[in-house]
Amino acid sequence: ADNFFLLAGPCAIESEDMALRIAEKVVTITDKLEIPYVFKGSFKKANRSRIDSFTGIGDEKALAILKKVSETFDIPTITDIHEVTDADKAAQYVDVLQIPAFLVRQTDLVVAAAKTGKVVNLKKGQFMSPESMKHAVKKVHDSGNENAWITDRGTMFGYQDMIVDFRGIPTMKQFAPTVLDVTHSLQQPNQSSGVTGGRPDMIETIARAGVVNNVDGLFIETHFDPANAKSDGANMLHLDHLEKLLSNLVKIRKTIKAL
Amino acid sequence: ADNFFLLAGPCAIESEDMALRIAEKVVTITDKLEIPYVFKGSFKKANRSRIDSFTGIGDEKALAILKKVSETFDIPTITDIHEVTDADKAAQYVDVLQIPAFLVRQTDLVVAAAKTGKVVNLKKGQFMSPESMKHAVKKVHDSGNENAWITDRGTMFGYQDMIVDFRGIPTMKQFAPTVLDVTHSLQQPNQSSGVTGGRPDMIETIARAGVVNNVDGLFIETHFDPANAKSDGANMLHLDHLEKLLSNLVKIRKTIKAL
Amino acid sequence: ADNFFLLAGPCAIESEDMALRIAEKVVTITDKLEIPYVFKGSFKKANRSRIDSFTGIGDEKALAILKKVSETFDIPTITDIHEVTDADKAAQYVDVLQIPAFLVRQTDLVVAAAKTGKVVNLKKGQFMSPESMKHAVKKVHDSGNENAWITDRGTMFGYQDMIVDFRGIPTMKQFAPTVLDVTHSLQQPNQSSGVTGGRPDMIETIARAGVVNNVDGLFIETHFDPANAKSDGANMLHLDHLEKLLSNLVKIRKTIKAL
Amino acid sequence: ADNFFLLAGPCAIESEDMALRIAEKVVTITDKLEIPYVFKGSFKKANRSRIDSFTGIGDEKALAILKKVSETFDIPTITDIHEVTDADKAAQYVDVLQIPAFLVRQTDLVVAAAKTGKVVNLKKGQFMSPESMKHAVKKVHDSGNENAWITDRGTMFGYQDMIVDFRGIPTMKQFAPTVLDVTHSLQQPNQSSGVTGGRPDMIETIARAGVVNNVDGLFIETHFDPANAKSDGANMLHLDHLEKLLSNLVKIRKTIKAL
Repeated sequence: ADNFFLLAGPCAIESEDMALRIAEKVVTITDKLEIPYVFKGSFKKANRSRIDSFTGIGDEKALAILKKVSETFDIPTITDIHEVTDADKAAQYVDVLQIPAFLVRQTDLVVAAAKTGKVVNLKKGQFMSPESMKHAVKKVHDSGNENAWITDRGTMFGYQDMIVDFRGIPTMKQFAPTVLDVTHSLQQPNQSSGVTGGRPDMIETIARAGVVNNVDGLFIETHFDPANAKSDGANMLHLDHLEKLLSNLVKIRKTIKAL
Repeated sequence: ADNFFLLAGPCAIESEDMALRIAEKVVTITDKLEIPYVFKGSFKKANRSRIDSFTGIGDEKALAILKKVSETFDIPTITDIHEVTDADKAAQYVDVLQIPAFLVRQTDLVVAAAKTGKVVNLKKGQFMSPESMKHAVKKVHDSGNENAWITDRGTMFGYQDMIVDFRGIPTMKQFAPTVLDVTHSLQQPNQSSGVTGGRPDMIETIARAGVVNNVDGLFIETHFDPANAKSDGANMLHLDHLEKLLSNLVKIRKTIKAL
Repeated sequence: ADNFFLLAGPCAIESEDMALRIAEKVVTITDKLEIPYVFKGSFKKANRSRIDSFTGIGDEKALAILKKVSETFDIPTITDIHEVTDADKAAQYVDVLQIPAFLVRQTDLVVAAAKTGKVVNLKKGQFMSPESMKHAVKKVHDSGNENAWITDRGTMFGYQDMIVDFRGIPTMKQFAPTVLDVTHSLQQPNQSSGVTGGRPDMIETIARAGVVNNVDGLFIETHFDPANAKSDGANMLHLDHLEKLLSNLVKIRKTIKAL
Repeated sequence: ADNFFLLAGPCAIESEDMALRIAEKVVTITDKLEIPYVFKGSFKKANRSRIDSFTGIGDEKALAILKKVSETFDIPTITDIHEVTDADKAAQYVDVLQIPAFLVRQTDLVVAAAKTGKVVNLKKGQFMSPESMKHAVKKVHDSGNENAWITDRGTMFGYQDMIVDFRGIPTMKQFAPTVLDVTHSLQQPNQSSGVTGGRPDMIETIARAGVVNNVDGLFIETHFDPANAKSDGANMLHLDHLEKLLSNLVKIRKTIKAL
C-alpha cells in the first residue's frame, strides 16, 4: 500500500495475443515487487500527426481485449477517450478513463468521463502549467466524482523537445494523486518526418526523479518489440528492461518513505 | 482581390442583437477598404479553463444567428467545431469550419470537417511547429477537400506567455493559405485566476508584421464592449479601433504587393 | 533623416582588403537609398563555442582597419568589446562600442563603455526579456552617457532555436533607440558540431517585421563569400542580396512614416 | 568518498564575521554527514540587473576572507571570476575558480582560469544545452588542465522562469564531474522590479532529483538570514534547514550507490 502504482502496457491494443502477453509479463514483475498495477492500452489512436498512421483495430474489439486482460489477471485497466460518446462506451470495459493531454481543456469530455463514476486520469497538456491542472481537477470534482488523477507527460520546450518540470510534482499533488508518464515525457515532437521521436535512454533518469519526489504513480509504455510497435515505438521501454527499472525504483521509494 | 481577407467577430455568439451589431459595423469598414470579410463567432465555447466559465447560449440558437448574419449582410461565416458530430451540424449554417488549436491533431475531427466540403480552417496548435502543419493540411486534402487554411495563433513560450514566430508565415504558406490570428496570439495563458490574460496593446504590432510578410488573412476578435464580453475579453480589439487598424494594414499590403 | 540606420559589415575583420571591399559596396548602396550607415566589424571573437574557432587577426591590427574604413568612406564604425580594458582601447578607433548579448549583464563592462562617451550599443541577452533591458540602459545613463542603443538578436526557444519577439520592439523603444539584428536572430545555437547554424532564408521576413514596426536601426552581417567567412557564415547575408533587401525595406519604411 | 560533495556558502562575502559564521555551521553539518565541503563565496557581484545593486566589499578584502575561512576550517574554497585578470588574482586565495553562466562562452576567461592549474567549475549557461558544455570542458582540457567541473543552474523557460532538465545530468557526467546548483536553478529572472525572484520551497525537490541521478556535487547558497542577504535572498536556503536537507539526500545517495 505504501508503494507507487503503475500504469503500463503497450501504446495501442494491436491484438489480444500481444495484450495478454504484455500483461502477463508485467503482472509477474509487479506481483513480485508489490506494485499495484493497472493495465494500459488505447483502443484507438485519434491524434496521430499523419493521416496514414495506425489508428487501431476497431473500438469494440480493442475494448473487449482490455476487459479480457482485466478478467484474466484480475487487474484494473485504463484507456483514453476522445469524444463525449466514448465515455459511456469505454466505461463498460475499463476502470479508469484517461483524458489525453491535447483534450484536457475540453470541458464536455472531462465532465462526461467524470459522470461515469470511473476514476478519471487527466493528462497535463504539454501547453499547461502544473498550477493550471487545478481547474481540470475541479471539473471532475464538480461533476460529483472525487476520483481524479493527474498525469504529467512533459511540457513543450521549443518545437522539437519536451522537458519535465519536477516542481510540478509537489504542486499537482496538492490537487490530486499525481502520476509521472516517463515514456511520453521523453518524446521529441514535430519531427520533420511526421513521426514523433524520443529519448528512451533517459527513462530511468526521469522515473527516479519522480519517485524520489514521491509521485503516486508511474506511467510506462512498454512492449516486447518497441521497434515494431504500431505507435510510439521511439519512446517505449523494452519489456525486458522493466523489472530492473522497477526494482531500482521500489528501493528508492522505500528510502523516501523512511525519511 | 489583391487584399488580405478578414475573419472577425466576437469570440462567442452571445445574442442575435450583438452579432448583427458587430457584423454591421465590420461590414461597413471592410466594404470601404475592399477587404473580403468572413464573420466569425463560436456557437459554443468548449475548452474554458474553468467549469464556471460561459460556454454558450445553445448550439442551434447560436448557429441560426450565424446564418442570419450571413443572409443579412451577404457574407460568409465561420465557426469552430469540437466533436465529429458538430461537423455536419455546423456545415448546414456556415461556410468555413474551424478546427481549434487544441484539437488540430484529432484526425477524426479534421476528416469529418473536410468531408462536409466546406473550407476547413486549421488552427496551429500552440504546441506545434509551423512545419508540422503540413500533416494537418494533408489530412484535409486526402479527404478529397482542397480548401484548407492554416491559422497561426501563437506558440507557447514558458507557461504564461505566447510568442508569434514569423518564420512560420512563409513556411505555412507553402502548405495552404495562411491566416494570422492577432488577438489569440497575444493571450497569456495559465494565469492563476484560471482566466486567460492578454496584451491587446500589441495587436497592431503583430498584425503589421503579418501583413508585411504577406499573410493571406487576418483573424481578429472584436467587440463593442470587450470588458463585458463573455469570453476572451482580455485580448479582444475594441470595435472602435478596427477601422484605423485595417486602414493602416491595407496601406502596408499595397506597398508589399508593389515590391 | 527619416530613414532607419544600418549597422552592417562582416562578422570579424579578416583583413584590410576584405573590410574595404565590403564597406565600399555597402556605402554605394546606402548612399543611393539614403540610409545612414555604420560599418560593423569585430576586432576579436571572444565567445566561440569551440577553442579551435577563428578568434581574430590581432586586436590593434583589426582596430586600425576599422579606423581606415572610417576615414576612407567617411562613415562611423562599431565594434564589440569583451573586457573592461577593451573599452578605452577600442574607443580610440571607433564611434560605437557594442556590448555582446552574453555580456550585457556585466555592470563593469557597460559602465566602462559608457564612460568613454561613445555611443553604447547594448545587445539584448538571449536570456533576457525586452522589459529587462531598461536596467541595462539605465546603467549607461547613470554613468553620464545619454547615448545608449538596444539591439535585439533574438531569444532562446528551446536549446537549438531562437525566436524574435516583436512585442519587444515597441517595448524597448521606450528605453532607447532600438535596432533589430536580423542575422544573429536567425541563429540556431547549440548544434552538436559546436558550430552555430542559421536560417538566412528568413532574413527578409524578420527584417520586414522590424521595419514595419518602426525599428530605429537594422543590424546585418554581410560578406561577399559567406560560405568562406571565418565566423558566422551560416547566418550571414550575401552582399549581392543587400541592395534588393534594403530597397524593399526603405519602401516599407516610407509607407509606415506616412500612416 | 562515495558521497556527493557540497559547494555552499552565502552568495556574496558580506563580512568576515558572516563568512566564518556560515562556514562553521556548514562544517559542523558536513563533518557529521561525511560530505566533502567546499566553501563558496563571491568576492564581487559583477552582473546585477540594476546598477544600484550591492556588488561587494572590495576584491582583496573579500578574497582574504575566503583564505581565512579556508585556513580556519581546513576546507577548500571556491569563488567566481569575471575578467581574465581575475584569474591569477583569485587563484592566490582559493582552490576552485568558477566561471559564471553568462560568461562560460568567453574563451579567454575559461583559458585564463584553466592555466592557473586550479579546478575550474564551469556553470552551464542558461542558454546552453547540456551537450554544448562538451566544448567548454574541452577548452579547459586543451589548456592543459584536467580538472574541469560542470554546474547546472537551470535553463531559461520563457522570460521569467527557469527549469532544470534532468536529462542533462547523465549527459554532462560524460564530460566532467557534474554539480547541480539547486538554489540558482530556482531563480525567476527578468522580474519587473529588476530583482530576481525565486522558489526556495522547491529546493529539496530539485536536490533529490539530482542526487537520485547521481550528481557528483551539489551547490547551495545558504545564509542565516536570507531575507537580509545582500544578494539572491529570494532563492537561498535558510541555514537552519540545511542539515535536514543534507541528511535526507545522504540517505538517498546511499540507496543509489547500492543499486
